[in-house]
Amino acid sequence: MFTKPSRSRAKIGIVGGGQLAQMMVDAAGPLGVDCAVLDRAGDESVARSGGAGSVRTVERFDVPTLMAFASEVDVITFDHEPVDLGAVIEAAERGATLRPGPAALAFSDKAHQRSALAANSLPVPPFAVASDPDAVDLFGSEHGWPIVVKAPIGGYDGRGVTVAADLGTAMDELGRFGGRAVLEPLLPLRAELSVVTVRTIDGEVVAYPPVDTRQDQGICHEVTAPSSLPDPILRVAATIAERVAEVVGSVGVLAVELFVVGDEVFVNEVAPRPHNSGHLTIEACATSQFENHLRAVLGWPLGSTSLVVPAAAMVNVVGPDSGQPTLTAGPGITIHDYEKSPRPGRKLGHVTAVAEDVTTAIASARSALR
Amino acid sequence: MFTKPSRSRAKIGIVGGGQLAQMMVDAAGPLGVDCAVLDRAGDESVARSGGAGSVRTVERFDVPTLMAFASEVDVITFDHEPVDLGAVIEAAERGATLRPGPAALAFSDKAHQRSALAANSLPVPPFAVASDPDAVDLFGSEHGWPIVVKAPIGGYDGRGVTVAADLGTAMDELGRFGGRAVLEPLLPLRAELSVVTVRTIDGEVVAYPPVDTRQDQGICHEVTAPSSLPDPILRVAATIAERVAEVVGSVGVLAVELFVVGDEVFVNEVAPRPHNSGHLTIEACATSQFENHLRAVLGWPLGSTSLVVPAAAMVNVVGPDSGQPTLTAGPGITIHDYEKSPRPGRKLGHVTAVAEDVTTAIASARSALR
Repeated sequence: MFTKPSRSRAKIGIVGGGQLAQMMVDAAGPLGVDCAVLDRAGDESVARSGGAGSVRTVERFDVPTLMAFASEVDVITFDHEPVDLGAVIEAAERGATLRPGPAALAFSDKAHQRSALAANSLPVPPFAVASDPDAVDLFGSEHGWPIVVKAPIGGYDGRGVTVAADLGTAMDELGRFGGRAVLEPLLPLRAELSVVTVRTIDGEVVAYPPVDTRQDQGICHEVTAPSSLPDPILRVAATIAERVAEVVGSVGVLAVELFVVGDEVFVNEVAPRPHNSGHLTIEACATSQFENHLRAVLGWPLGSTSLVVPAAAMVNVVGPDSGQPTLTAGPGITIHDYEKSPRPGRKLGHVTAVAEDVTTAIASARSALR
Repeated sequence: MFTKPSRSRAKIGIVGGGQLAQMMVDAAGPLGVDCAVLDRAGDESVARSGGAGSVRTVERFDVPTLMAFASEVDVITFDHEPVDLGAVIEAAERGATLRPGPAALAFSDKAHQRSALAANSLPVPPFAVASDPDAVDLFGSEHGWPIVVKAPIGGYDGRGVTVAADLGTAMDELGRFGGRAVLEPLLPLRAELSVVTVRTIDGEVVAYPPVDTRQDQGICHEVTAPSSLPDPILRVAATIAERVAEVVGSVGVLAVELFVVGDEVFVNEVAPRPHNSGHLTIEACATSQFENHLRAVLGWPLGSTSLVVPAAAMVNVVGPDSGQPTLTAGPGITIHDYEKSPRPGRKLGHVTAVAEDVTTAIASARSALR
């Protein structure tokens, strides 16, 4: 399948100790790759020492920490999306091997995403990057209220996204987001898709089959594969996603979340890292997103992204208002427990079910949560 | 004083059309330098075409816009602080001359500021960069509630800064800031200082005399020079500020806002651009911050930063709850009207007064607003 370099075991440094890091570590073992995970004090670490990974806690992910880490590993990659971009820029300038690098990590900024994708003729929803009430008012008048107001940086799992019914509400949110926001109309969505792509250091891009995603209060809640949308739309989605990966110039996994409005496909958001919508690739595809991410950042050939089951579904396990969720295993069901302390709204794990068809798979995954 | 390059007139491109851009244009005329200002649609432009400057409106400050602009001018500089860092990284990689460059502009992120300055042994207040309730709770327990919660990106004029009395409030704010914030204790401030520095492309750093600043609801409201603090503190402040300019590696003006607690001086915030606290340099110093910023980004020798008056005071003119403020001129008073439409809390202009002593200067500046 691929040739391992004729040296001692490869070693990947992962900045951030969340569940994405742990799933990378889980994928590293069978590849014969070692991982070192840097966790940050105060963050709840999920990654565990043992197996292919060791975990160390640092005060912060600053330049000296990144440089010291770079000297210990072959390549540094990221579990955390909202990393300190300034530190990454400087570490890269000083010669640290960071994949993805600063230019791709800058795509964590939703304002940059939208502007850069639009500048490269990729279809994005109507939007404005606004810091001024006049601009917000103009946008609301042009596209109609309510509008969606998004924090450019750091928003995830529904945080940093608000539907604002009027200028006053929009400006309150904008102030809370630090004075700058991405605005978009409230689109009449037919569906939401996600395409997980992987890009090598040579610029080769492969895509996983598009999956259907359903959000609940801004959290990606359910994912099903294969998508139920017509083939022409899926072909457009895959083409758009591959082009996005080229524009971002990332190395490793890049998830492209898409809006479907009528027969049109728009890029909603881009995440330059393994993504929740790709978790079902562990059970459903020849090569998981985590294995392919590691292969890509190491400069190894990628594995096949094909579906190897007829259908799969993933349901996130989110902290209930009180107590701990109970999960029930069953045929075709895999429970991924992140071993986090439960808190309302927090992602505590996910359940993947594989089955003969999507309807059965999603029913099966949901049944594990009951 | 300096030798102009033996070529046609130098031309500086300014991204952003606010009052800082206009004051740069005002400084460019006497230097024989042309300016082109890019304003963004929807932002209220303050910069005017005419004199040394022409103003053009673009849809957004993205990579194609920056590259086209770079081909028209000798160097691009910035009025806007929260620029699209991703676009700046890519434009710099493609060869655009940007001063300051991406590594310095990344210091607009308060989380990066604090981490990078701490890593370089500069005195900063106790802080944490937190995205997790456990980390916020730990910080509050260690330092005592209430704590200050700051948006890492984009906060200015009091937006993006909240005093949180408890964990619930802090997490609400953190969520509104997009899930990540800088935490610091509510410090017992003796005073606040600002030191405006200028760094050349060769790394030479000069500082203006430290000034006293007084905030009102997070807006820098009054500035007086010279500072009333004892000389040993001012020497420490100046040394710290010069070291900050080296660490940031900026080109042009970099303002360093400092907290004084007892006899200790801490870096509060850094702004890699001309700054409100340096506006009085127009009237009070041999060379204004705007002229020195232009000189620095052009690679010209800097002008003297010395005070040329015994004392000066600056008062911001902020939009009242209703109507338009009335300003009265007088001896030693200069009124700077940014010609913005009034809105409550918006900076509409500033008044500078020079006098024999600080007490007279501040009384004189305030009297213009009555």
